Amino acid sequence: MPENRQVLIASVPEGPLQTSHFELRTGASPTLGADQVLCRTLALTIGAGQRAGGLKGSASNAYNPREGIVMRGTGVARVEASNSPSFAAGDLVVGPTGWQAYSAQDSTALQRVEPGTDPALQLGGLGTNGLSAYFGLLDVGAPRAGETVVVSAAAGSVGHIAGQIAKLQGCRVVGVAGSPAKCDMLTNELGFDASVNYKDADFRAALEAATPDRIDVYFDNTGGDILGSALFRMNTHGRIVCCGVVSQYDTANPAPGPRGIPGLLVSTRVRMEGFLVFDYADRYEEARRQIREWVSAGQLKLKITEFQGLDSAPQAFVDLLGGATTGTTIVRV
Amino acid sequence: MPENRQVLIASVPEGPLQTSHFELRTGASPTLGADQVLCRTLALTIGAGQRAGGLKGSASNAYNPREGIVMRGTGVARVEASNSPSFAAGDLVVGPTGWQAYSAQDSTALQRVEPGTDPALQLGGLGTNGLSAYFGLLDVGAPRAGETVVVSAAAGSVGHIAGQIAKLQGCRVVGVAGSPAKCDMLTNELGFDASVNYKDADFRAALEAATPDRIDVYFDNTGGDILGSALFRMNTHGRIVCCGVVSQYDTANPAPGPRGIPGLLVSTRVRMEGFLVFDYADRYEEARRQIREWVSAGQLKLKITEFQGLDSAPQAFVDLLGGATTGTTIVRV
Repeated sequence: MPENRQVLIASVPEGPLQTSHFELRTGASPTLGADQVLCRTLALTIGAGQRAGGLKGSASNAYNPREGIVMRGTGVARVEASNSPSFAAGDLVVGPTGWQAYSAQDSTALQRVEPGTDPALQLGGLGTNGLSAYFGLLDVGAPRAGETVVVSAAAGSVGHIAGQIAKLQGCRVVGVAGSPAKCDMLTNELGFDASVNYKDADFRAALEAATPDRIDVYFDNTGGDILGSALFRMNTHGRIVCCGVVSQYDTANPAPGPRGIPGLLVSTRVRMEGFLVFDYADRYEEARRQIREWVSAGQLKLKITEFQGLDSAPQAFVDLLGGATTGTTIVRV
Repeated sequence: MPENRQVLIASVPEGPLQTSHFELRTGASPTLGADQVLCRTLALTIGAGQRAGGLKGSASNAYNPREGIVMRGTGVARVEASNSPSFAAGDLVVGPTGWQAYSAQDSTALQRVEPGTDPALQLGGLGTNGLSAYFGLLDVGAPRAGETVVVSAAAGSVGHIAGQIAKLQGCRVVGVAGSPAKCDMLTNELGFDASVNYKDADFRAALEAATPDRIDVYFDNTGGDILGSALFRMNTHGRIVCCGVVSQYDTANPAPGPRGIPGLLVSTRVRMEGFLVFDYADRYEEARRQIREWVSAGQLKLKITEFQGLDSAPQAFVDLLGGATTGTTIVRV
């Protein structure tokens, strides 16, 4: 059996995440039980939401983090050996590999990946990031051509896709991001109509200037002050898509909700709706077909920040939470 | 011409409302312009929302309050004289009479009231209170039989109707109110399954005990801490109907929104939606027919707190905001 390498939770973080919250372990690769599949991880994706679900635990998560367990995560893997009739050595799969080189997976936990697919595409545009952007924008936000859509964390894994899908619907699209370089990428490379740096002192005025017809759909990946600012800029019967809360993940004390909730929701008749992509599982294939089509036609550009080697996963996560990455964060294992 | 009596805004309140924010004036009744109707006010309704719209002004209100103008309000009136072919002396109408005995109204501002209708019924169950309860609960909240519905300000003008309509849908209904007497009224007189006093120190625990299957629809008339508590008790895919913000009206400084927004909306996929009844104007008659039917069949009890005489309107408003009234607050002029 090959040697396994794993990234463990060394301690559960209370405040901002550091690489010291993780440790590396080397050991034997797992043995297979009945109907299990030995997976060799090829690439992992890291998302900001894992800071909440994977490292804080919550009522809605069956899994709660604790010292000494392998960090949870989704990866693309190659099947090395199989005790299941559903998979054979050489198959490409996606599943809950965790941050480790090898894992024994129940065959029911795995989904087959089309041969030849770049793991980064599978984990980004065709993974929960792309699917969240697709269903969150189109189903929850339901923008109409000509409307103004604002996306926060717009250079991030979900945001950069959501904004481009909004453009494909004929909307005016404004991205909110945290650096001039990210803002430039949105407008110069990804076709956003405007972008605003939320770290600028005059952010609120800049957001107003960028949304002369106010906001019809706000795709919220951040919560916090950006949500508060967008809320006061919503049009009557606008929709706020609550996709993520990146402003609140890396802290022990979530901030209060924005002023104006619920008063402003009443006077503007705004709908604010949380969603999780897993509720749309029976429509994943529809979304993946459409996303592949857009990518092939050059209408949707998928951004990726790549890290090399399993050992780099903790740093990748810290960089992601610190705003140093763009698009989907991928670790090639 | 008969003498007119009017209640004017003496000063725009900054903090809690007092009767000294109003003053009475006596003068000539108005003269009629083209297509105008002379209305003799029979009864006024006062709602907590007027503390916001009528006495604070807001971007969504064309009318902003200022010293020296007649306090705005909706009333039922008898037509005394008419320059309009649409109305004749003796007709019963409802319209923006304001807090005064006589007013000259554009005929287009008035709606005819079925002869013989008690003004209190027209202004309560058939007015914006009843209509808000009807559309807010059924259209925005969309409860299904067997679900748990929680209503705040449940003894109030909208709440006591919303709760009873929820019972008629086969729901378990829990009312939140601010006194033992109100709580008793909800369960003993109006058929609520349970009631909770939000002023009790153990409110949150009591709300939990009253909602063993958690909350599917929360009909929010208050905002503030009650909303915060309900939010943490919502079921997956629950709906929060944002109807009013009575906890925030009588203050110059609205509180921040509840902790958990938007994070909890994401993890529970809760939809939170503001609404104003005026958006449903083309369906008012459908709702009024249904409400009359329920009232006639004894399935819906309409509670009213009555005040006698125009002079009592300021005290009625202060009492309403202080929680001393139940059901619809009516001033017989």
